[in-house]
Amino acid sequence: MPGPEASVPTASGPSVVALGGGHGLAAALAAWRPLAGELTAVVTVADDGGSSGRIRREMPVLPPGDLRMALAALAGDEPRTREMATLLQHRLGGSGVLAGHPVGNLVLTGLTEMHGGDAVRALDTLADLLGARGRVLPMADVPLDLVAIVDTVDPDDPQRSRHIRGQVAIAASPDRVRSIRVTPADPPVHPDVLAAIARADVVSLGPGSWYTSVLPHLLVPRLRAALAASSAQVVVVLNLEPQAGETDDFSPEQHLRVLQDHLQGVPLHTVIADADAVVDRRGLLSAVQGCGATLVLAPVAAADGPPRHDPELLTGALASALRGAPGAGAR
Amino acid sequence: MPGPEASVPTASGPSVVALGGGHGLAAALAAWRPLAGELTAVVTVADDGGSSGRIRREMPVLPPGDLRMALAALAGDEPRTREMATLLQHRLGGSGVLAGHPVGNLVLTGLTEMHGGDAVRALDTLADLLGARGRVLPMADVPLDLVAIVDTVDPDDPQRSRHIRGQVAIAASPDRVRSIRVTPADPPVHPDVLAAIARADVVSLGPGSWYTSVLPHLLVPRLRAALAASSAQVVVVLNLEPQAGETDDFSPEQHLRVLQDHLQGVPLHTVIADADAVVDRRGLLSAVQGCGATLVLAPVAAADGPPRHDPELLTGALASALRGAPGAGAR
Repeated sequence: MPGPEASVPTASGPSVVALGGGHGLAAALAAWRPLAGELTAVVTVADDGGSSGRIRREMPVLPPGDLRMALAALAGDEPRTREMATLLQHRLGGSGVLAGHPVGNLVLTGLTEMHGGDAVRALDTLADLLGARGRVLPMADVPLDLVAIVDTVDPDDPQRSRHIRGQVAIAASPDRVRSIRVTPADPPVHPDVLAAIARADVVSLGPGSWYTSVLPHLLVPRLRAALAASSAQVVVVLNLEPQAGETDDFSPEQHLRVLQDHLQGVPLHTVIADADAVVDRRGLLSAVQGCGATLVLAPVAAADGPPRHDPELLTGALASALRGAPGAGAR
Repeated sequence: MPGPEASVPTASGPSVVALGGGHGLAAALAAWRPLAGELTAVVTVADDGGSSGRIRREMPVLPPGDLRMALAALAGDEPRTREMATLLQHRLGGSGVLAGHPVGNLVLTGLTEMHGGDAVRALDTLADLLGARGRVLPMADVPLDLVAIVDTVDPDDPQRSRHIRGQVAIAASPDRVRSIRVTPADPPVHPDVLAAIARADVVSLGPGSWYTSVLPHLLVPRLRAALAASSAQVVVVLNLEPQAGETDDFSPEQHLRVLQDHLQGVPLHTVIADADAVVDRRGLLSAVQGCGATLVLAPVAAADGPPRHDPELLTGALASALRGAPGAGAR
């Protein structure tokens, strides 16, 4: 069942499920907010770095960082809820063992413990407190680890490939990821996640760290099966630039091919890419068409600062993608 | 200025300032809630143990534990505010460096950092979130340390007395406290604390750890001066039993004499003691009268469990004490 706030559609728009993690998911949620009637974030729980990693090593809870960030992205616009969101994002200072922990990671962990390990109840409580414009759910009910097989880049390395375990290690390795899986291999998925996907009009993937925030959802068998069975329009938002260590030198079409390798029956209807990030438009269009999908090329990058999606521009691109959705005749 | 919630009296009762710390102050606040029109807790900031001590050693903030406990004691009765209070009191589990920290200590610390070190703003924000039936303020604007001069109990110890610094060390030492002071010796006190005392109808001290939660307020010169200048009725609630290490074998009248030694111009009008905790009624009455005060002997202990004040019984005793207040003719 949706949480107390999330069950009330904020508009008459479509029911949207956004898959991802980190800043990429936060950007997607910010862009979906004005469009979606119902908005559910389904968040990666495979992070083992930073505050989340430290918390995972101390107690048997889901890594809270990506969940916290998604909650903050959905917080209401009232001064009180904005202050709460700022507090949850605030990282403790000082020079001791608490330094660097976002307050929200500790609050979510404490709430989960208090509710006997029920992370979804804890997330709904925090969403309520934040006046959240949607619901945040974990992509699995247990913490996951990513395991990658990488091709070694060092020509003198006698090993051609090796296994690397853990999101941090994978991101830190200079080696090129060849394939990736999660462990445990078939984790339990909360029924509310499966129900949200079943009734979704649209499911979005990305933007975000491709191997550690976007693909993991397709590596969870029960989630992949729900996506394959869904009649939702599946929209992929490609990244603006490659992710160092993970997808160095990856063109948008290479991102898409890696994604396609993991779809295994999940349909792909629409691909959104930034017009300026695409060097080989013909190549990308060919890759998109190879997936049976439609390409939406639009300016979605923020004008200044480090490469990131501009929420309003991305909202516009998503709206365009929806106009090509089932019922609008362009699918 | 009082916080947004605390500024609205919840009843037509007197304006009450409760001084103390820890479980004793929480008991006093629970007892004052149904009686007070305006209720302000002024809380010790000298704790250096447990979670508060760990946080103090990591960052330059007030020890949050006693402040958090007072906030929780004032939380509203709605399910949402009760859940928030339970969360703030929840101690993190696991077996790592986070274990044992109450979530509220971390939240209060984070909020204070977020507000540039403004602990009072952070407390008011949390009070608002909890729908608190009163306001919580620190007794000083900087963290304090207690320094005790103790008489050694070991007859073979060549030193007859020594200095012990820190609340934990004082409580842990078997030596008898002879005198106690705070450092810094004249800490700044928030103007809202002084204003609350100036307009109070009643100020209560205790119950609580005598040397570490009750007396420290009288050791802060600006606080003591405000109390001496106030026209409020000053009510002391004596403990039910001695505190191991601090006040072993202290009778109620000895508690009172130690308090009297630290009053230095602060008036004392009413003393509340549990009828069953008093062995020498005549001695206590004599000590109370020696302070120029009135004794209220009443059953205030909870019927079962470890010795603690029963909130409803203590409310009744405080109400009796108020009937003897200025304006009621018995002062």
